[in-house]
Amino acid sequence: MDFTPSDRSNDLAHRIEAFVEQRVLPLEAELFGRVRSDDERWQEPRAVRELKAEARGEGLWNLFLPDRELGAGLSNLDYAPLAERMGRSLLAPEVFNCNAPDTGNMEVLYHYGSDDQKAQWLEPLLAGEIRSAFCMTEPDVASSDATNMEATARLEGDQVVLDGRKWWSTGIGHPHCRVVIFMGLTDPDADRHRRHSMVLCPTDAPGVKIERMLHAMGFDDAPYGHGEVSFTDVRLPASNIIAGPGRGFEIAQGRLGPGRIHHCMRLIGLAERALKLACRRALGRTAFGRPLAKLGGNAERIADARIAIEQARLLVLKAAWALDTHGIRGAMSEVSQIKVAVPKMAQDVIDLSIQLHGGGGMCNDYPLAAAFAGARALRLADGPDEVHRMQVARAEFKKYLG
Amino acid sequence: MDFTPSDRSNDLAHRIEAFVEQRVLPLEAELFGRVRSDDERWQEPRAVRELKAEARGEGLWNLFLPDRELGAGLSNLDYAPLAERMGRSLLAPEVFNCNAPDTGNMEVLYHYGSDDQKAQWLEPLLAGEIRSAFCMTEPDVASSDATNMEATARLEGDQVVLDGRKWWSTGIGHPHCRVVIFMGLTDPDADRHRRHSMVLCPTDAPGVKIERMLHAMGFDDAPYGHGEVSFTDVRLPASNIIAGPGRGFEIAQGRLGPGRIHHCMRLIGLAERALKLACRRALGRTAFGRPLAKLGGNAERIADARIAIEQARLLVLKAAWALDTHGIRGAMSEVSQIKVAVPKMAQDVIDLSIQLHGGGGMCNDYPLAAAFAGARALRLADGPDEVHRMQVARAEFKKYLG
Amino acid sequence: MDFTPSDRSNDLAHRIEAFVEQRVLPLEAELFGRVRSDDERWQEPRAVRELKAEARGEGLWNLFLPDRELGAGLSNLDYAPLAERMGRSLLAPEVFNCNAPDTGNMEVLYHYGSDDQKAQWLEPLLAGEIRSAFCMTEPDVASSDATNMEATARLEGDQVVLDGRKWWSTGIGHPHCRVVIFMGLTDPDADRHRRHSMVLCPTDAPGVKIERMLHAMGFDDAPYGHGEVSFTDVRLPASNIIAGPGRGFEIAQGRLGPGRIHHCMRLIGLAERALKLACRRALGRTAFGRPLAKLGGNAERIADARIAIEQARLLVLKAAWALDTHGIRGAMSEVSQIKVAVPKMAQDVIDLSIQLHGGGGMCNDYPLAAAFAGARALRLADGPDEVHRMQVARAEFKKYLG
Amino acid sequence: MDFTPSDRSNDLAHRIEAFVEQRVLPLEAELFGRVRSDDERWQEPRAVRELKAEARGEGLWNLFLPDRELGAGLSNLDYAPLAERMGRSLLAPEVFNCNAPDTGNMEVLYHYGSDDQKAQWLEPLLAGEIRSAFCMTEPDVASSDATNMEATARLEGDQVVLDGRKWWSTGIGHPHCRVVIFMGLTDPDADRHRRHSMVLCPTDAPGVKIERMLHAMGFDDAPYGHGEVSFTDVRLPASNIIAGPGRGFEIAQGRLGPGRIHHCMRLIGLAERALKLACRRALGRTAFGRPLAKLGGNAERIADARIAIEQARLLVLKAAWALDTHGIRGAMSEVSQIKVAVPKMAQDVIDLSIQLHGGGGMCNDYPLAAAFAGARALRLADGPDEVHRMQVARAEFKKYLG
Repeated sequence: MDFTPSDRSNDLAHRIEAFVEQRVLPLEAELFGRVRSDDERWQEPRAVRELKAEARGEGLWNLFLPDRELGAGLSNLDYAPLAERMGRSLLAPEVFNCNAPDTGNMEVLYHYGSDDQKAQWLEPLLAGEIRSAFCMTEPDVASSDATNMEATARLEGDQVVLDGRKWWSTGIGHPHCRVVIFMGLTDPDADRHRRHSMVLCPTDAPGVKIERMLHAMGFDDAPYGHGEVSFTDVRLPASNIIAGPGRGFEIAQGRLGPGRIHHCMRLIGLAERALKLACRRALGRTAFGRPLAKLGGNAERIADARIAIEQARLLVLKAAWALDTHGIRGAMSEVSQIKVAVPKMAQDVIDLSIQLHGGGGMCNDYPLAAAFAGARALRLADGPDEVHRMQVARAEFKKYLG
Repeated sequence: MDFTPSDRSNDLAHRIEAFVEQRVLPLEAELFGRVRSDDERWQEPRAVRELKAEARGEGLWNLFLPDRELGAGLSNLDYAPLAERMGRSLLAPEVFNCNAPDTGNMEVLYHYGSDDQKAQWLEPLLAGEIRSAFCMTEPDVASSDATNMEATARLEGDQVVLDGRKWWSTGIGHPHCRVVIFMGLTDPDADRHRRHSMVLCPTDAPGVKIERMLHAMGFDDAPYGHGEVSFTDVRLPASNIIAGPGRGFEIAQGRLGPGRIHHCMRLIGLAERALKLACRRALGRTAFGRPLAKLGGNAERIADARIAIEQARLLVLKAAWALDTHGIRGAMSEVSQIKVAVPKMAQDVIDLSIQLHGGGGMCNDYPLAAAFAGARALRLADGPDEVHRMQVARAEFKKYLG
Repeated sequence: MDFTPSDRSNDLAHRIEAFVEQRVLPLEAELFGRVRSDDERWQEPRAVRELKAEARGEGLWNLFLPDRELGAGLSNLDYAPLAERMGRSLLAPEVFNCNAPDTGNMEVLYHYGSDDQKAQWLEPLLAGEIRSAFCMTEPDVASSDATNMEATARLEGDQVVLDGRKWWSTGIGHPHCRVVIFMGLTDPDADRHRRHSMVLCPTDAPGVKIERMLHAMGFDDAPYGHGEVSFTDVRLPASNIIAGPGRGFEIAQGRLGPGRIHHCMRLIGLAERALKLACRRALGRTAFGRPLAKLGGNAERIADARIAIEQARLLVLKAAWALDTHGIRGAMSEVSQIKVAVPKMAQDVIDLSIQLHGGGGMCNDYPLAAAFAGARALRLADGPDEVHRMQVARAEFKKYLG
Repeated sequence: MDFTPSDRSNDLAHRIEAFVEQRVLPLEAELFGRVRSDDERWQEPRAVRELKAEARGEGLWNLFLPDRELGAGLSNLDYAPLAERMGRSLLAPEVFNCNAPDTGNMEVLYHYGSDDQKAQWLEPLLAGEIRSAFCMTEPDVASSDATNMEATARLEGDQVVLDGRKWWSTGIGHPHCRVVIFMGLTDPDADRHRRHSMVLCPTDAPGVKIERMLHAMGFDDAPYGHGEVSFTDVRLPASNIIAGPGRGFEIAQGRLGPGRIHHCMRLIGLAERALKLACRRALGRTAFGRPLAKLGGNAERIADARIAIEQARLLVLKAAWALDTHGIRGAMSEVSQIKVAVPKMAQDVIDLSIQLHGGGGMCNDYPLAAAFAGARALRLADGPDEVHRMQVARAEFKKYLG
């Protein structure tokens, strides 16, 4: 179990760190800190566009993709430290074209897409020219149990017909969002894990309608946003199905492993950022004649935060290593473990940092409130904590059965 | 230690409960659930105005005020169950003219205001015609230590001159907000607790400027809002000082005792609401073939939430009883105890309810995300948890010292 | 909901407090603090015998019994503060003849015993001349589910025949233990809650054998002890059955309500004792140039302990009040709530106090390690936390079902 | 950061695992499970003597010692998995001659001892023929702050004279305990960390007296035990000082780094054992018609325990790696981090296992109660949690200072 990153990963990590520190963080205050006028909120800021070009020019681009030519060809373990560094700013992943859900969607296309699908969607996504969304969760059923899914992707002749309602379609508010991956029921009589298909659906296909944009713990997360989207008799060529009908679950499973590693490493980065801010605040702010660092339990809580972050990072590295070494089948428990442990840890560390920042921590003077909302959301996104705990428990009990 | 409410309190509680259930909650979904167009957001909704008239007509009005004529003349213990019931909806306190910070401001005017001050400000506040704000916390210093305060209220002849910057001036965004109570340093050479004054300052006084409105954990809390406000050479008649120069701390202390009881009882109501929603969701939503109530640790967590709420409510009732019986001097530890215990309890119960609601819990389909933000904010407002813990500890240690 | 104790309760509380402070605590150090030679350990210390006589002489005797003549005739609410004061010392309950399981056994005999049973067993128990045990829990099945019980109390003619194995028969090691209440299956075909009987069984009946004495978290709890006891073809007159065959569950339920109040109030007393020791230690011990009270998070933890104790006490008082007012049927959730909340609270407060005492806290120089073991045991005794949480959750869900 | 154990470590781990599983665990039930008669308790059981010979014969001996000839010459990282496996049984470390405090004492002698000291004490310790104790902690001062130490080791001519009182001298009750390492003040005027010396003191030196044996959370931990020991004018040759006067702190620091790794890895092993027992119990025990594994929150708690153990183990491996790579100076924060995280984690996991075992978990039918006491003790031994948290916090703040 060797967590040493390759020289290549190390080099990229240093360059990303410097880029984030020098180019992204100064911009962040400007873009997130002040509330922009409303018509601007849902545009891609020009500064972001420029930074993307710059990052791409420096080769800090598509680093998530395990392909040496299209991406950086890094293992999960090698990509993890990069994701952590990008995660320090909510703005950074986009700058490096490593933002969810585009990363997951690109991976799906890379692994399962046909040549046509790749040409049409993967290429502009890799170029950062278009954005995408992922339409899986549904408002009317407990989506933690994927077999509850009610939306359909029926085959009719050479067409696939989409019907149903999805929500938490993150990124669908972005002005460049051109395509979604839609998951729906194709064959209710097939084997339990062969019933669903994933379908590429252009956002301008007739019958696709954004019913409303959702707030997540108070944030609209512009310009990406989270949409509730209805699909009504949306008719597409059957060739829009990814990898053929009935392979939805298989693809979803492959998509989620690396995706959870990315999410969790970004959260580690966010927690590190929150802790850094907390330390600076504790040293720089005075009450009752002493810096906060010397008051009551503040120092002990800082220590607990450090210990929690260290443990969480190591657990994610282990999951990345397991995924690289044994594949998703052999890393199921590990991947669920990090989904339980990391968002809760991040939520708690950020909460501590908010508390040390007082009123400043709650408003947009710091990225803390938004970071908190993001960490909180990830206790539900990609499966709630409770479902992952059951997965971990199952693996545990299995050791003593039969 | 008798927590039995009087018949009068009981009767009012039943009537408020019915009013909230039948008149306020149905409206809440409409007003909070959907995101209104932006120019409407900062208006008082007509429906609220109508409900206020209705509540006033029914005598459910100003119940917080311990005056038999102007309010209901209830003790803290008798008012507590009413505050709980109002707290179930974020909309309700306003409907009964029992919304913070107006309640605290009205109490200050009632106890310390001159006849002129009462005529000018207390009467329209009691009539629900105007709203007010409280300007104490400052952005540049740790306001948890009130002696840090940098804003000034200097006497010049028969004028008082306000200078400084305040933030988290809640309610200042309301279209009817006409006056703020400003706290500032008057005499730096006086005794530590005789240095500051409270001054009534009209919002349209020259030199008062709302620099920006703050988000609190993602929410702008329209139409009340939280403002950062600058005061530049604001010149007012010295008669605007409440109870004379140097009495700011004394007034603040008297203001905060009942205010914390109110806040905490409203949070109990909010937690009860969250638990009710959680139970309904747990019984009504199915995953993996069973209602959530039968899955994993959900039922145990519901039980823990019930136990936590019960304990918190009893603690607040005890603090209210202590305040009624011994006055604020004799209830310092109790009041600090509830400030530590209740917001954290509410945050945790609401977090559980959000978790059970999945994506729905995070968006505005339920009042949970806003409730969470409110509970979180109260771990900082009126003094952070940590300062109150030190207060409780001090009282504890004092038992064993000389 | 009036928690004010009666004058009588108040008076008794003061007298018990003084008695414990002046007579019991000084003895405690002597009896518990030093490890006595082994042959003495299982004797009743002469000093305890003398204190019992003294307490009885002062009328501080059998105060738990709700009978004005035999006991003090106090309600649960009135007895609660007395139990708290007795609970401050592990030695005190015996001194006042208010020790479990004798209290529960006496209540059973008082409420359900025949005249003969009362003459034979209740009178010497009330006189403090003999001790008793309660034989319900079994080693081979999950006793949290009472229907698992395998021991039998079969009727054969005018005899009842006991067979089976019980453990955690607390008090059976005491030299004066003369009788146990045995619970066993009588009629497997009866209604679910009419199958079991409670039988009075002398400890010297042929077929009764103490197989071994158990340690509880390291402590043997001499001279009471916890026994594993086998019953082999123990033949007793059918008149030894309490209240007739099949009434075991009914009696058990009536027994457990007040018993849990007693246990929990004693734990509150124990937690108060631990907190007092913690404060004294924090003020009196110096490290790094400052008293522990001024180091790191110690003061905040002391505050949290105070807040936790206050909440727990109020919850028990509410349960006592509910039991007095509504009977056990109407106080099921309340009684389960305290069984979940109080032992865990006590365990945590005592753990904190141990931590502040360093090595001293772990050894018998302080009553803390024994107190910790006692609190920990009560998270299992009388039903594990988890079973009580399910009971609380059931009551919660019932509010929203049909 | 490569955590992969060497082939040698791997091979030893497998052999230790098999040895523990097949030879030690069966014996454990016999030795710990039943309470032996008192005169036997303080003897070394013959079975242990035999197992030691066997282990030594198989080369599973002194594996902790980083010397290729005398020990196994393993790095901390390579030894960690062996310590974990030994830690599964409270009996095992002795069997492999890897028991604390002998390991730490042997390391001190190995690194700092003179040839004579090595011949006299290190050799028989390495042979497992004698046992030793470590006398540092004192009853009358807060030993968490080592500068509080009051015992003296004064130089008089060619003698060193020991005076003072020590406690928690673990192992001093063992029949083979022949020597202690005593730490005392030599030169109060020297630099703060050059004042103390470590002195080898035979247990039969005139003036050494075991005042009493201490219980630790209820356990006497026979046949090792924890003693309170007085040293009265104990006169020894100055050559008994280890590495010369004034080097006590330097030696202590070097001793504690690996010692804490060992303790923590053994606790990981103990937690794994507790979790294994918990899983088996959860699967094998039935209540309310279902195995405990399917009841309420049990499965989720099992998952949380797995996640906690994984994180803790990785953190210890990182600390071991840091110690190997950077030395103790470069691993201070890491070593403090594990001292905070691991004992608390182990305490919680064992507590969960006890809870699942019901009454069985509290008594000696399982090694759980003793394991709990051991984990709890380690939250104080080698420095309380709070002191280590301050150490971690200090390292954190240092990043942002000058």
